[in-house]
Amino acid sequence: WEYDGPSMKTSVPGPRSQELTKQLGEIQNVGAVNFFCNYEESRGNYLVDVDGNRMLDMYTQISSIPIGYNHPALLKLMANPNHLSTLVNRPALGILPPENFPDKLTESLLSVAPSGMTRVQNMACGSCSNENAYKAMFIWYRNKERGVSGPSDEDLSSCMINQSPGCPDLSIMSFMGGFHGRTLGVLATTHSKAIHKLDIPSFDWPIAPFPRLQYPLEEFTRENQQEEERCLEETEDLIVKWRQKGKPVAGIVIEPIQAEGGDNHASANFFRSLRNIARKHGCAFHVDEVQTGGGTTGKFWAHEHWGMDDPADIVSFSKKMLTGGYYHKTDLQADKAYRIFNTWMGDPSKTLLLGEVLNVIRTERLLEETARSGKALLNGLYDLQTRYPSILSRARGQGTFCAIDIRDDETRNKVLLKARDKGALMGGCGDKSIRFRPALVAKEYHIQILLNVLNDVLAQI
Amino acid sequence: WEYDGPSMKTSVPGPRSQELTKQLGEIQNVGAVNFFCNYEESRGNYLVDVDGNRMLDMYTQISSIPIGYNHPALLKLMANPNHLSTLVNRPALGILPPENFPDKLTESLLSVAPSGMTRVQNMACGSCSNENAYKAMFIWYRNKERGVSGPSDEDLSSCMINQSPGCPDLSIMSFMGGFHGRTLGVLATTHSKAIHKLDIPSFDWPIAPFPRLQYPLEEFTRENQQEEERCLEETEDLIVKWRQKGKPVAGIVIEPIQAEGGDNHASANFFRSLRNIARKHGCAFHVDEVQTGGGTTGKFWAHEHWGMDDPADIVSFSKKMLTGGYYHKTDLQADKAYRIFNTWMGDPSKTLLLGEVLNVIRTERLLEETARSGKALLNGLYDLQTRYPSILSRARGQGTFCAIDIRDDETRNKVLLKARDKGALMGGCGDKSIRFRPALVAKEYHIQILLNVLNDVLAQI
Ligand code: FES
Repeated sequence: WEYDGPSMKTSVPGPRSQELTKQLGEIQNVGAVNFFCNYEESRGNYLVDVDGNRMLDMYTQISSIPIGYNHPALLKLMANPNHLSTLVNRPALGILPPENFPDKLTESLLSVAPSGMTRVQNMACGSCSNENAYKAMFIWYRNKERGVSGPSDEDLSSCMINQSPGCPDLSIMSFMGGFHGRTLGVLATTHSKAIHKLDIPSFDWPIAPFPRLQYPLEEFTRENQQEEERCLEETEDLIVKWRQKGKPVAGIVIEPIQAEGGDNHASANFFRSLRNIARKHGCAFHVDEVQTGGGTTGKFWAHEHWGMDDPADIVSFSKKMLTGGYYHKTDLQADKAYRIFNTWMGDPSKTLLLGEVLNVIRTERLLEETARSGKALLNGLYDLQTRYPSILSRARGQGTFCAIDIRDDETRNKVLLKARDKGALMGGCGDKSIRFRPALVAKEYHIQILLNVLNDVLAQI
Repeated sequence: WEYDGPSMKTSVPGPRSQELTKQLGEIQNVGAVNFFCNYEESRGNYLVDVDGNRMLDMYTQISSIPIGYNHPALLKLMANPNHLSTLVNRPALGILPPENFPDKLTESLLSVAPSGMTRVQNMACGSCSNENAYKAMFIWYRNKERGVSGPSDEDLSSCMINQSPGCPDLSIMSFMGGFHGRTLGVLATTHSKAIHKLDIPSFDWPIAPFPRLQYPLEEFTRENQQEEERCLEETEDLIVKWRQKGKPVAGIVIEPIQAEGGDNHASANFFRSLRNIARKHGCAFHVDEVQTGGGTTGKFWAHEHWGMDDPADIVSFSKKMLTGGYYHKTDLQADKAYRIFNTWMGDPSKTLLLGEVLNVIRTERLLEETARSGKALLNGLYDLQTRYPSILSRARGQGTFCAIDIRDDETRNKVLLKARDKGALMGGCGDKSIRFRPALVAKEYHIQILLNVLNDVLAQI
């Protein structure tokens, strides 16, 4: 069913893509457009463009395609006339849910709930998932401060004009290099690239250093441990400092692997210690699995690699999960209705797709597949790194969630473009990294095709 | 095809809805759930619940269903196998758009572009539409300040840690009673109810008074004009004051009719003056048509009632438009790629639906229908208000976008529940208003059914 390899007719973007880019440029900014796609003809791990080029897709729409293009199970699901109503009647889920909604949540989202969590709040994308997770942490924190007494009259009147005590000076602690979205609240916790933040007003919230480890991790355990300890100490100092500043930290947000910021890893021990620091200082602990979740690290959630029963107070998701949302411990549920709310609160047509994606992950054993393909990918990157030591360094990864550093930004971009012209799509991240984000259906032979393309490109540089 | 009237089997919520609410309560906060729906059985203006009750829907999923439930044209569209790929392969639109994307935008969103606007930025919901519109205004404002010189090194480094000058102290001016969404940026411009804002950190941004007019508008022209002048003066004062405070107003955001805040109207003259004040002070002017857009006022956009060639710099939309986004003047386009960006940037499956909705609006002449039904509704409300002067007041509306005030909050809620048990759904807004938000397919005889139910309920109070 799937294509048996890349097939290139033109360099990319080809003439048809260029024409369409010009046309779209009359309507909106097209500076980020790579090329135009023929999604009908795309299949599995292969993305086909409008010039007839067929590329092995190791970037998958910014890591958001879980089981490849046009998976037969999804096509069958959507062709089922029983689901037409779900496609044309988008409800306001928070007030008027469809009959099957509790069952659908149980079958889909709750069937993969993180350890210790039995509650989930559906949302629509990564940004609103994280924005609302922050709101839940602020509400939880203030209710804890208030104890049994409800909000004061002053709380209720001052909040209407954006002033404290109703709109309190609370903060969310984030990490340098982190990415949690681009709406104004979550953007205040995003520290990936300047272009993401420039000119947008922000909050004075604490930013802790994320460990800058040496790879392969096994070879630098002592150095890495020291680096992580330094970061943990500074994290704790910042919590104290911001409390003294009158802007207490209500929650700490972190990605299990910093993705946009350059695929930065940290040890299970680091995250366990951080979880304890959060608990000790009365801050909620929010693990953002928008990019790491959904199976790509070889476990369904990246935080499972930490081996904890109680890994977090909140775990947010989107991308490969097709719907946004967040799981949470019971006490992080807002105490009243309409505090965490919006018109749509997600989309049942996405939950429907997710249910089928989870079935496919189980029946095709895609977590095992991803662990296997990931091992092949990381070993292949180690191998390339040995062969091209002046160009490549810091190969790293978990499952197929892998990355490698290139000499410099310019060479990185050259590698990406040359590989694309040879039929392999990857993404950039951080200053000079390449990231690999295949779908869960990438098998070892797809990885082999990718490694061959990379080898060809590197040999030419 | 459509049902010929409400049909009630139980009071609402019925036993099955109560059971499902309990089940969903194990998973999430269900305080806002009204009842559970059978969307398959719902048709046109009638929403059917899981207990077999069939209600005339004058609230339409918080004003987000454009042409009623299960419109045959939409069912036909979604049953077309050519669109399966659009349903199962959600692209990262900003980098890898599908081949038909420029054409689809032209046929759908651009075919109803506001006067003076040829560019549109697709987004996913009302919140991200407004958040990104604010970002566009901030970027535009700073670029204007900088002139030809690009961002300084200090801009680029300070923004990474949330500090000025990179993250500047700019503000968005909003109006008391306004609602622009619930993520942290837009929430700072939302001033509807305390429960929407309580405990969430905010920005110190200026909040102008929205005119508090007397209705019917024609009868109080002199008083209303004075009130509007007072508000305009204060608006201008606040712009000056915030500039002096070092937090200049980059943009002014306003709804043509304040919806969540209680259906507050202002005159065309007020908005024209405001547009001029914005221009005079170098602020962008952002008209939020998330709730008013899509035909419900009898014109496609509510701002068309102002009769201006150049009504705004930015017009945002969502809800009835099925996709989020904003139109903008050319100079409000961000100068570089990736400044206004996220993973999905909307969803082609929603643009597909919108295209068909616009066809139906044209072929079924639904703007004219809505103007006609709206006149019947408003006249009917005037009539009821004359008959029940101790309960009702301030009937107001444009098209079917109508509202009326009830004596007090408690009576308002009683009227809503009693009317629901008789088979008519409406929404609350503001402190003690009822709002009517029928779909564009509501005909005069639907309005008559609604008015009869209302009359019955009021007679009993
Ligand atoms: S903010 Fe998530 S869909 Fe709009």
